[in-house]
Amino acid sequence: MKYLSFSVGGSDTYGAVSGDGVVDLGKRFGDRFATLKDLIAGDFPDEVVAAAREPADYALDDIAYLAPIADPVHIWCLALNYVEHHDEVQNAGRVQELPKKPAMFARARDSFAAHEQPLRHPGVSEQFDFEGELAVVIGKPGHRIPQDEAYAHVAGYTVMNEGSVRDWQFHTRQITPGKNFYRSGAIGPWIVPRDEVGDVDDLRIVTRLNGRVMQDDTAGHMVHKIPAFIEYASSIAPLYPGDILATGTPSGVGFSRKPPVFMRPGDVCEISIDRVGVLRNRVEEG
Amino acid sequence: MKYLSFSVGGSDTYGAVSGDGVVDLGKRFGDRFATLKDLIAGDFPDEVVAAAREPADYALDDIAYLAPIADPVHIWCLALNYVEHHDEVQNAGRVQELPKKPAMFARARDSFAAHEQPLRHPGVSEQFDFEGELAVVIGKPGHRIPQDEAYAHVAGYTVMNEGSVRDWQFHTRQITPGKNFYRSGAIGPWIVPRDEVGDVDDLRIVTRLNGRVMQDDTAGHMVHKIPAFIEYASSIAPLYPGDILATGTPSGVGFSRKPPVFMRPGDVCEISIDRVGVLRNRVEEG
Repeated sequence: MKYLSFSVGGSDTYGAVSGDGVVDLGKRFGDRFATLKDLIAGDFPDEVVAAAREPADYALDDIAYLAPIADPVHIWCLALNYVEHHDEVQNAGRVQELPKKPAMFARARDSFAAHEQPLRHPGVSEQFDFEGELAVVIGKPGHRIPQDEAYAHVAGYTVMNEGSVRDWQFHTRQITPGKNFYRSGAIGPWIVPRDEVGDVDDLRIVTRLNGRVMQDDTAGHMVHKIPAFIEYASSIAPLYPGDILATGTPSGVGFSRKPPVFMRPGDVCEISIDRVGVLRNRVEEG
Repeated sequence: MKYLSFSVGGSDTYGAVSGDGVVDLGKRFGDRFATLKDLIAGDFPDEVVAAAREPADYALDDIAYLAPIADPVHIWCLALNYVEHHDEVQNAGRVQELPKKPAMFARARDSFAAHEQPLRHPGVSEQFDFEGELAVVIGKPGHRIPQDEAYAHVAGYTVMNEGSVRDWQFHTRQITPGKNFYRSGAIGPWIVPRDEVGDVDDLRIVTRLNGRVMQDDTAGHMVHKIPAFIEYASSIAPLYPGDILATGTPSGVGFSRKPPVFMRPGDVCEISIDRVGVLRNRVEEG
């Protein structure tokens, strides 16, 4: 099942994909679950799953995708979480040892576009780069979650383009500025429940820029795996329903290529992850 | 005038301090301005200022302070923004050159307690440190704000304890983890409008731990001043009403002292800033 937030006829709601269409779950369950965030906190109740299988209310072509979660409390991301990506960053002259702990930073909610919304070129920089990533969506809240209980807190998965502005990322040691440009990243199109995705290690993550494959790796190559990330982040602060954990990008990013490849207005970036979905965005002038 | 968010009789509202009491502005203007964030977006209308001078509805002793803004989109903070603080960090073996650009990172809203709420000891670390800071509260939104227009976007000022967990801050180059422990920081007690504070350069920032002065400096010693910070942050993403910009801490923090001084349950940390206020918190077991 694919659960999504969307806008139709000027109203925001949420639902589930059914064939070429969408079942409006907000219309059916809005009194109990105002948003998709509230729904996943309740762990996909049986009656919601049953309703999600009803005939579609709208065609997919008639909706506008929204970010699956409008206002996560936390959007935690990891830098340098694939060995080959670490090596290419080091080779590009950004010498850093492989972090022994998760190199965690935060993104703000307004740094993301939804599926098929335009990515905004930063304008003030030409170094606009893509980063395909598997993103975890928290369902059950928790504080100080041990690794062996971590997956019970995962509602499901979505796709992230953790779009980055490289020169601003390296202004100082803190990469946060280059990671937070307005709608420089994207998230979606939907959340697929954990049980339907199963083991993530074999999930293939492929990033295409204008159709050309730029990144191609499997999630099993993460340095700090999902349970370790959840344990680490939840040692710091509680994780809440709808919190997003972006697990880092594989090798193949644009700035470490020779010559470098950066995104320009008109480019189309597409990230596909097996059993999760394809996130597609065109870059617009910033 | 001191504008604050607070809870009374189980309900959250906002108001203004009047003598030893509080005028409930939420009760009077809640239809137009649901929260203090909405009010400051409207730049303190005359009728609100007039109402704030009416006799108090409640005694200050009968309210519980809340963070002035419940859910800022952005809480941007600066590291190493006072020269003497940079030098003490360098001397403590954390060698870094003075950043030429603002070393910006993000804190989540749940990393702050309100005035007189307990600071939570991190539990997993003994290196819980204080950082007294002047915090800017954005009123008028803006994207790509030039320095010479920056102050027009400032609604007012508040006090921040940018409480930090030092060993977690230095796990990797990204200091974000040590800066985001649940209620490890504090903000408040209120927002004082920009015009009433005037020029910030002479504002004295004093941090006391159990009554002992630990930090004592003036805001004029910032490296990247408020207009430069606003220009930088708003080049990245829009600033919204209620966004918080924490301007960095002066020298005197605990971890660079010999021997180091860290906060323990039962300690009381108090940060005072001229013409803004005094933020006081007791540390509780985490």
